[in-house]
Amino acid sequence: MSGQWIVGVDLGGTTTKLAFINMDGEILHKWEIPTDNSNEGQNITINIANAIDDKLGECNERKTKLAGIGMGAPGPINYETGVVLNVVNLGWQDNFPLQESLHSLTGLPVAIENDANCAALGEMWNGAGKGASDLVCVTLGTGVGGGVIANGNIVRGINGAAGEIGHITSIPFGGAPCNCGKSGCLETIASATGIVRLAESELSKPESKGQLAVVFAKNGKVTAKDVFDNARNGDELAKKILNEVTFHLGFALANIANTLNPEMIVLGGGVSRAGDILLDGVKANFSQFTFSAARESTKLSLATLGNDAGVIGAAWLIKNKLNL
Amino acid sequence: MSGQWIVGVDLGGTTTKLAFINMDGEILHKWEIPTDNSNEGQNITINIANAIDDKLGECNERKTKLAGIGMGAPGPINYETGVVLNVVNLGWQDNFPLQESLHSLTGLPVAIENDANCAALGEMWNGAGKGASDLVCVTLGTGVGGGVIANGNIVRGINGAAGEIGHITSIPFGGAPCNCGKSGCLETIASATGIVRLAESELSKPESKGQLAVVFAKNGKVTAKDVFDNARNGDELAKKILNEVTFHLGFALANIANTLNPEMIVLGGGVSRAGDILLDGVKANFSQFTFSAARESTKLSLATLGNDAGVIGAAWLIKNKLNL
Repeated sequence: MSGQWIVGVDLGGTTTKLAFINMDGEILHKWEIPTDNSNEGQNITINIANAIDDKLGECNERKTKLAGIGMGAPGPINYETGVVLNVVNLGWQDNFPLQESLHSLTGLPVAIENDANCAALGEMWNGAGKGASDLVCVTLGTGVGGGVIANGNIVRGINGAAGEIGHITSIPFGGAPCNCGKSGCLETIASATGIVRLAESELSKPESKGQLAVVFAKNGKVTAKDVFDNARNGDELAKKILNEVTFHLGFALANIANTLNPEMIVLGGGVSRAGDILLDGVKANFSQFTFSAARESTKLSLATLGNDAGVIGAAWLIKNKLNL
Repeated sequence: MSGQWIVGVDLGGTTTKLAFINMDGEILHKWEIPTDNSNEGQNITINIANAIDDKLGECNERKTKLAGIGMGAPGPINYETGVVLNVVNLGWQDNFPLQESLHSLTGLPVAIENDANCAALGEMWNGAGKGASDLVCVTLGTGVGGGVIANGNIVRGINGAAGEIGHITSIPFGGAPCNCGKSGCLETIASATGIVRLAESELSKPESKGQLAVVFAKNGKVTAKDVFDNARNGDELAKKILNEVTFHLGFALANIANTLNPEMIVLGGGVSRAGDILLDGVKANFSQFTFSAARESTKLSLATLGNDAGVIGAAWLIKNKLNL
């Protein structure tokens, strides 16, 4: 039924995003509910099911309007069984049967995927990578995540660990420790946290000067946005940090392009809101470290869907599963 | 027809390898013919067609015994049309319709693929990666090539440039020039040519000593095999070169695993015949630079099919295309 809607759900630790989406990947209605982690997360799927029913009522539509639910969740997922293997901050025990729970509460077909992969699918379906069947998405947020799509399908790998672009090693020896247990990961440099770390390391030197140093002296801290804003205004120290970030990001993405030659590499997440000053620097390094056939064909782009990528990609999941 | 055979062809610049292969990926008959580059390569497909007919005669079999022909060729290929875009050493003009030519000469269905991808498919079908649907093959020969398989399919990329693992940048600044126009490519270090370059650079120093230096003084050159043989015997200079090779190879493959988490990464090509002394060093570096979920699940292995990988993978191509 071409007039049917799909539900996209993007489950986060504090907020759950929901949307009704049409078969062209366009959001018709979107809203958020708090994620209730209490009681071992038992209310999470109940609240989602109720939120969908309530919104349908507001729209004067019946359940038959909905073809199914696609959902992105943090952490490793067995996408075949729809089981969330383990996730620390939602209250669930290991191996929570998310797909089955939501299906039994709603009566609708459900598909589940890792949230970083959903963001990549969203950008592929109706964002910066629209129409591309080979796409890599890098999410630059508190951490660095990623999703790899090859031949139109998510690459999950043997252990669901594909797309962990944040844990590409950028500095083999003497890099900063990463939450993953390694050191020198791309995430320690190109995440918001990493950018702040680099900045504060420079700013703690007694000889540091310039506008970013003034911000630091005033606030006792800086943000990634401070670094980009001051780099844009020509501050030398901010530019130095930006150059380090764009070098490592461009280098890592170039080597991904040398390996996968995707049609597009999309930069998303909060850090990517820095826009062209980030993208231009990444592009320059990317060009230097790609070989010609990849350099000429793999494009770099900023994400266009922002926080909506997750719900749109989640909706694509169930559309694809049901062959709609 | 389960008793049918498939023809695998591996077209090289000087020799063309052919094989009759059963539906389990086992070679029943294999042989070679010279590749005739003269007359703009016009004889290449004629000779292949004749060679197939002759061998069928020897086997007392008729053309109906053959289900189709799969063929690997050097250089970039449009696998959908079966056109070889450009290849320098076979005599063909650009955009040679290889698939059509061989089909019209034999009357058999034909599928064409890049030869490095065929080698990866061969190892996936009946070699070190048997049964794996996510696999990366690295061919360490005169150069360094590669093939990436994700979700059971070759990843070609938007410009057919996927799998160019040899052109991953290993040394961002000050690396040796590569044939591709960049510098510091993995190929400048981990190919047979690269290993010899590293060795001769060390050996040209007046202070160089040890058994490898004796070989160099005697022969005026060393081979990659000399380096491995002497490293195995404890020669310090040879071990130093080996360590450089295994560091860069392990580092690059770790970052591929962090991105793709394949079930297996297979090392093939002439250099891989060094065996465990190479594999063990690569494994140690690989472990250091992979994050835990990939480290625990992606295996490293030596190729098992040797020079037969190409014909076996080529045969898989047409089997897959015909859904046999």
